[in-house]
Amino acid sequence: MNRTGKYTVEFSTPPVILASAASVGKAEGEGPLKDEFDIINENDGIGSDTWEHAEAELVNQAVGLAIKKAGLMPQNIDIAYAGDLINQCTSSTFGLRNLDIPLCGLFGACSTFALALFCAALATDSGAARIAVAEASSHFCSAEKQFRYPLEYGGQRAPTTQRTATASGACVVASKGNGVKITKGILGRITDYGVTDIGNMGAAMAPAAARTISDFLNDTNTKPQDYDIILTGDLGQIGSKLFVDLMTEEYGFDVSSVHADCGNMLFDINKQDVHSGGSGCGCSASVVSSKILRELSSGKLKKVLFAATGALMSPLTAFQGDTIPAIAHAVLLCS
Amino acid sequence: MNRTGKYTVEFSTPPVILASAASVGKAEGEGPLKDEFDIINENDGIGSDTWEHAEAELVNQAVGLAIKKAGLMPQNIDIAYAGDLINQCTSSTFGLRNLDIPLCGLFGACSTFALALFCAALATDSGAARIAVAEASSHFCSAEKQFRYPLEYGGQRAPTTQRTATASGACVVASKGNGVKITKGILGRITDYGVTDIGNMGAAMAPAAARTISDFLNDTNTKPQDYDIILTGDLGQIGSKLFVDLMTEEYGFDVSSVHADCGNMLFDINKQDVHSGGSGCGCSASVVSSKILRELSSGKLKKVLFAATGALMSPLTAFQGDTIPAIAHAVLLCS
Repeated sequence: MNRTGKYTVEFSTPPVILASAASVGKAEGEGPLKDEFDIINENDGIGSDTWEHAEAELVNQAVGLAIKKAGLMPQNIDIAYAGDLINQCTSSTFGLRNLDIPLCGLFGACSTFALALFCAALATDSGAARIAVAEASSHFCSAEKQFRYPLEYGGQRAPTTQRTATASGACVVASKGNGVKITKGILGRITDYGVTDIGNMGAAMAPAAARTISDFLNDTNTKPQDYDIILTGDLGQIGSKLFVDLMTEEYGFDVSSVHADCGNMLFDINKQDVHSGGSGCGCSASVVSSKILRELSSGKLKKVLFAATGALMSPLTAFQGDTIPAIAHAVLLCS
Repeated sequence: MNRTGKYTVEFSTPPVILASAASVGKAEGEGPLKDEFDIINENDGIGSDTWEHAEAELVNQAVGLAIKKAGLMPQNIDIAYAGDLINQCTSSTFGLRNLDIPLCGLFGACSTFALALFCAALATDSGAARIAVAEASSHFCSAEKQFRYPLEYGGQRAPTTQRTATASGACVVASKGNGVKITKGILGRITDYGVTDIGNMGAAMAPAAARTISDFLNDTNTKPQDYDIILTGDLGQIGSKLFVDLMTEEYGFDVSSVHADCGNMLFDINKQDVHSGGSGCGCSASVVSSKILRELSSGKLKKVLFAATGALMSPLTAFQGDTIPAIAHAVLLCS
């Protein structure tokens, strides 16, 4: 593969997404994308005794189904790239524990799914893997408990907050075959605008999205209108507005007509109690692994630049008064 | 690159480690390897206001120095692969925040440094990166606070426990140049023998090391005596004995004459209060990035099979009664 410009990687024989699957929770299954998901769990417990085990079960459901939809078995997968928000990424490891697939654990907070697709494309295009899996997950209840308050506490959430998606999305990526192609990718740099409000992740992450996407546009000598969608992961309503403004004011790109955000698509923001929109690794993972890839497969969409953002903080760094560093990784998905 | 056997990757033009650096804390700087390290900090506070910031400073020291020793600047690095043990991997991200290098965050617990070297080799051999950095870190005080008890509590530690290394190691990996070569690599599968004792990580991790190393020996049709050292990351004294026994009894390989463990090398186990030995991502990262690479560079060692193991648990999974899944990743380092 080659590098294009300073930061972008161009895959030589673009890897193909053979199949994908999305498994979600109850609220996600009542939202605008309810007809897009493969598995809608009746409740967020997902037959498990803890929220963390429930999230691991989501991982297992999505990865297992994606492999099955590709007509494969777990032993056909050479590498799984996976990550989540939970301490020590245990949702991913416990969810994948019984599949016996070589694992590269990733941490990119909510940027993880784009990072996993980038890594899976790199591995398959290079020959390091014949077939790889890219997966990411999150769970509203495990995330609230860890990052904010346990649900039982009944804490009030600020209007700027987002609802962590109870969702996992998984893609099976291969060096050859039929399906949507991953043609290019870019890894982001840490971007920190000094935001300290852990109730406003969209504001912390928007500058990272703007930087990675403008790097990609500059590297590839393209403009926003060359893409059907420039799709961010989970900026939500507040972060999306900041992103569009930053793209114009700081980088000179008008993305207003082509920008969409998975966090704004996953829930009905007017009817569901989600404040500024959806968030979490599973938000973009489930939206891309369902509606977006289906529309790319059918030809309704031709080129989607998918950039997911992550806030690289922890509750401890917030308590210690640190600002919130953010990152955005992106892949170009083509029908 | 090619796959050799079921699990092993053979790099086409073996990537080269242009330079490495290790930065450690006070106890590590008083141990048997004190003359090997680049930076020995006078105390574990490392001029910082919190243990977590101290660990981030270790990251910054090791990565900064490795890049400098390679005669490069941070802007010459196309991808940094980095990870640590702290929740949401904030030591890595805060330590790398000011270097402005595209970042792929990894989570492999104490296996992270072998995973980072594998990923850096894959990226440089494939052309996705011209030059990459592989780094991992840990800190005794931040790890005790997070995984066991704050130091101020004065908890007694069981004889089976290990001391988390206060250390970071970093390597600059390039597609061409002079230096030790990374010729092969293997990503491990999650291995869970049902161990639940979080005070005995060596026992939880030894089966993963045995599985990955025997997979590698089988894939490459080699025997233990073909290597100068089969080097595990941080099994410590108890885990090392289990590993050697498992290799013989379960896999039929006698590794007793070639096995060494970074956790047994980092401290003087008879004189320093480290119980079963050293541990943590920074343990193998600092030992490999100093003594091992120096002896490979000088030709004293020719072939080192470096396999680092990680326990993929969290304090929460332990509280919830889960067993400890483990993983081991390996790379073959050749002079």
